[in-house]
Order: sequence, then C-alpha cells, then structure tokens
Amino acid sequence: MSLLPLPPSLIPFLEPYLPRSNLVLPNRPFVTLTYAQSLDSRIAAKPGAQTKISHQETKTMTHYLRSEHDGIMVGIGTVLADDPKLNCRFVENGNTHSPRPIVLDPYAKWTYHKSQLSEIYNIGQGLAPYILVDESVQLNPLDVATLQQQDGKHIRLPLIKNRQQNWDYILKALVDNGIRSVMIEGGAVIINELLSYGADNYIIDSLIVTIGPVFLGNQGVEVSPTSHVDLEDVKWWTGQQDSVLCATVPKAFKLD
Amino acid sequence: MSLLPLPPSLIPFLEPYLPRSNLVLPNRPFVTLTYAQSLDSRIAAKPGAQTKISHQETKTMTHYLRSEHDGIMVGIGTVLADDPKLNCRFVENGNTHSPRPIVLDPYAKWTYHKSQLSEIYNIGQGLAPYILVDESVQLNPLDVATLQQQDGKHIRLPLIKNRQQNWDYILKALVDNGIRSVMIEGGAVIINELLSYGADNYIIDSLIVTIGPVFLGNQGVEVSPTSHVDLEDVKWWTGQQDSVLCATVPKAFKLD
Repeated sequence: MSLLPLPPSLIPFLEPYLPRSNLVLPNRPFVTLTYAQSLDSRIAAKPGAQTKISHQETKTMTHYLRSEHDGIMVGIGTVLADDPKLNCRFVENGNTHSPRPIVLDPYAKWTYHKSQLSEIYNIGQGLAPYILVDESVQLNPLDVATLQQQDGKHIRLPLIKNRQQNWDYILKALVDNGIRSVMIEGGAVIINELLSYGADNYIIDSLIVTIGPVFLGNQGVEVSPTSHVDLEDVKWWTGQQDSVLCATVPKAFKLD
Repeated sequence: MSLLPLPPSLIPFLEPYLPRSNLVLPNRPFVTLTYAQSLDSRIAAKPGAQTKISHQETKTMTHYLRSEHDGIMVGIGTVLADDPKLNCRFVENGNTHSPRPIVLDPYAKWTYHKSQLSEIYNIGQGLAPYILVDESVQLNPLDVATLQQQDGKHIRLPLIKNRQQNWDYILKALVDNGIRSVMIEGGAVIINELLSYGADNYIIDSLIVTIGPVFLGNQGVEVSPTSHVDLEDVKWWTGQQDSVLCATVPKAFKLD
C-alpha cells in the first residue's frame, strides 16, 4: 500500500527531535521512543490485536522517522501480533533508506524464516533483522541458516535475568553493531519499561507520541509507566485527525 | 488567585461545542464533559490527590467554559478530595456569570456547611449548590438549614439502585430545576460512567479534554471507558504546554 505524502509542516516540527548524523555516543545509540495511542492511552484494543489508531498521514510520519534512524526496534509481542514488515516505505528523491529491524525476543519464540520480515528481505525491500535473544536459549536451526544467508544475525545477550538492567547490554550491543540511532516502536511492555526507567537513566532521547481521537477502552493494552515522568522541550503538531507530541525526557542526553 | 487571560484563539475554537442559549431540551440539559488528563490518561496521581496537569491558560479555559453553562457538576469523590470552589472566575466586561454547582453525593457523605463552597456563597462569589442524594439517606440537619438560608437545596433521586440508569433521573431533575446546560468535570467514576454509556444513549453532547505533557503513572486515577468510543467533529487546539481536544460523540444530540 502506498503512503500518503508527508505533511510538509512535519519536517521542521520533527527536526529538533531527530538523531544527528554526526552524533556518535560511545555506549548506546540515540534512542527515539515512538508510538500511537488512543485518548485513554491504549496502543491496541486488546492484547495481540492490531488496532488502527492513527491517520494515514501520521503513518507516513512513522516511515519518515524510520528513514532517519539506523535501526527500528520492536518486542516479540508486537512481532507475533502483527508479523510486521519493519521497513521504510518513505521515498525521498526516488530513494528509500532501509533501517535495520531489531527484534527483542529473549526466549526465542519467533519462527523467523516463516515471517513476512524474511520475505521482505528476499524481495529486496528491507534488511534482515538483528534478533536479540538470551544467552541461554536454543535457536531454530532454520532461522540461523536463513539469517546467515541473508545479512542478519542473532545477538546473544543476558536478557532474562534482571530485566530492568538489561537495556544497558541491549543498547551497547546495538552501537557495537553499527546502530548509532534506534527508533523503538513498542509494544507496551518495552514502552512501559523505557518510560519507567526514571530520570537518571538517560535512555530516551526523543519521545514522539501520536494521539488518535478515540477511546479504546479499559480492556486495551495500556501505556503508563510505574511512576511520574515529566517532559521537556514539548511541542504539539495537529494533523487532519491526530495530535502529535514531541518531547525530551529531563536529564536525558541533551542535543546541542 | 487571578486567572491568566484567555488565549483569543480559544473562543472560535470552542464556539461550535458550546451550548446554545436558545436551545432547550425537554428531558435533559445540554451536557459538556470536560477534564484534564496526562498522556497516560490519568486525572490525578493517586486517588484523592489533587494533581496539577494543565497550564494556567487552559485553567482559564475551564472558567470560560463554566461561564457558558448553567451548572457545573462534580462527584462526591472530587468534592472530598479538593474542597472545590466550583465558581466562575472568568470576567467578561467586568461581569462574572455564576453557574450552579451540582454535587452528586448519593450517600450524603459531604458535610456541606463546613465546606469552602458554602463559604464562597457567603462571601458572594458563587451560588449555593444543588446536592443530589439518594431517596433513602438521612441528611445532616445543619446542611439542610444552611442550604435553606442560602439558595441551594438537596434533590432526592433514586441514585443507589441501578446506577447506570440513574443518569436519566439526574439529567431530568437538572432540567426541571432550570439547568439547561451542564458542564460535568469529574471525577473519574462519573467520567467513565458517561463515556461507557455507549453510542445509543445520547448523554454527552460535547467532549473537551485537555492533555498535559506528563505521565502520572499507573497508580494514578484513570479515565478509560468499558468499551470503544469513536468521536466525531474532532478539533485540536495547542497552547503553550497542553493540547485540547474538542469532539462530539456519534449519535449524540446534534447541534443545528
């Protein structure tokens, strides 16, 4: 499906929140957290459901943002629910930029070689993923062989124990593998973990939230951190249907 | 505390969502539901806490909206938590309009004669309230006497049994008492009840939600209906800090 054009006013609106091409952090990539939610802070109507919340023009924004990052990261829940393409369909000057898909799958639940993502690589529409798995798990040999033929890989990390502290390993592994900027798109477990890190942990550099004018109801999949999070550098953009918030998290790494 | 000036762009933004002075519905008032929430759809950081979410300019908006309604309604939880003034401090041409405070207190938990609201009446800064109580409860004689001296009253209604259906009684009682438009401000129990009525029940005419750029966290007091609610006639306004959504609820009474 082709994308709507990007609303021109989004480019200057988003610019201050994008990673800088000349910025290289030593121990982690630049982290953009982005998702679309309902008014009642739900990203899906129920667990495992793919729910349309945002207007097509803010969907185009997501692909534009992907074009500005080295990697796109999602959790295994999102992958199993959506079988996503995780590529970039935003075309600029006739070219697309292909970000690296990164899937956080500690228990190796995903059968990669049967996925749409593998197919996307095979038809030349995206890169093969880096799949982050725990050091302890057994991998499906067909997945290993498929990733070897393609340009992806499994990355083994200590992911199961002390989950809260594992983001240091994850982010270090990404930067060691050439990912200097990553856009983290969900699902709710990952979003809530990142937002719950608190002000001293410097994980989120930019937060970009699309709010669709709908209530999904209290059975939906909720975004809400474990405690209060203040935001800084807040700006709002309004589209045909949605409102988009951009912000930084206080004490996070400051641009410029 | 004096209010900031009303941002001029709010007047045309809000106009389509205001009750019409020449509009009289037979069985209920025009209902505006309005509240301020965090990104994660919390109206307070914890039960009983009064939490600053919105910027002073959107606080002025609340007082402007109060000036456009005959009544302001809140639940007993909000009254016990905030001891609110429920008056209108928005001044236009040197005048203020005083809306009628309406408190939904089915079990008569409130000691009215000791409240700030009673004091506000005594110093000439607002009307005395209509307090909606169940038919079965005993009233505090001092509250009854105080309201008789002032211009308020208790209104006895069947409120405890079949709670979901009692909004018909509540709204009919309001219109029978001269309230042709009511702004319902909370708390979460009332907001969630009204949003959970579903599309066929015609209770909310206008929805006005202020979203402050903060996460209050999952221990907060949440707004989320029991099921999906689509919105129509959606518009967004952006202030210095907050985003404001105005909308109507499909199948609700249509203006014009």
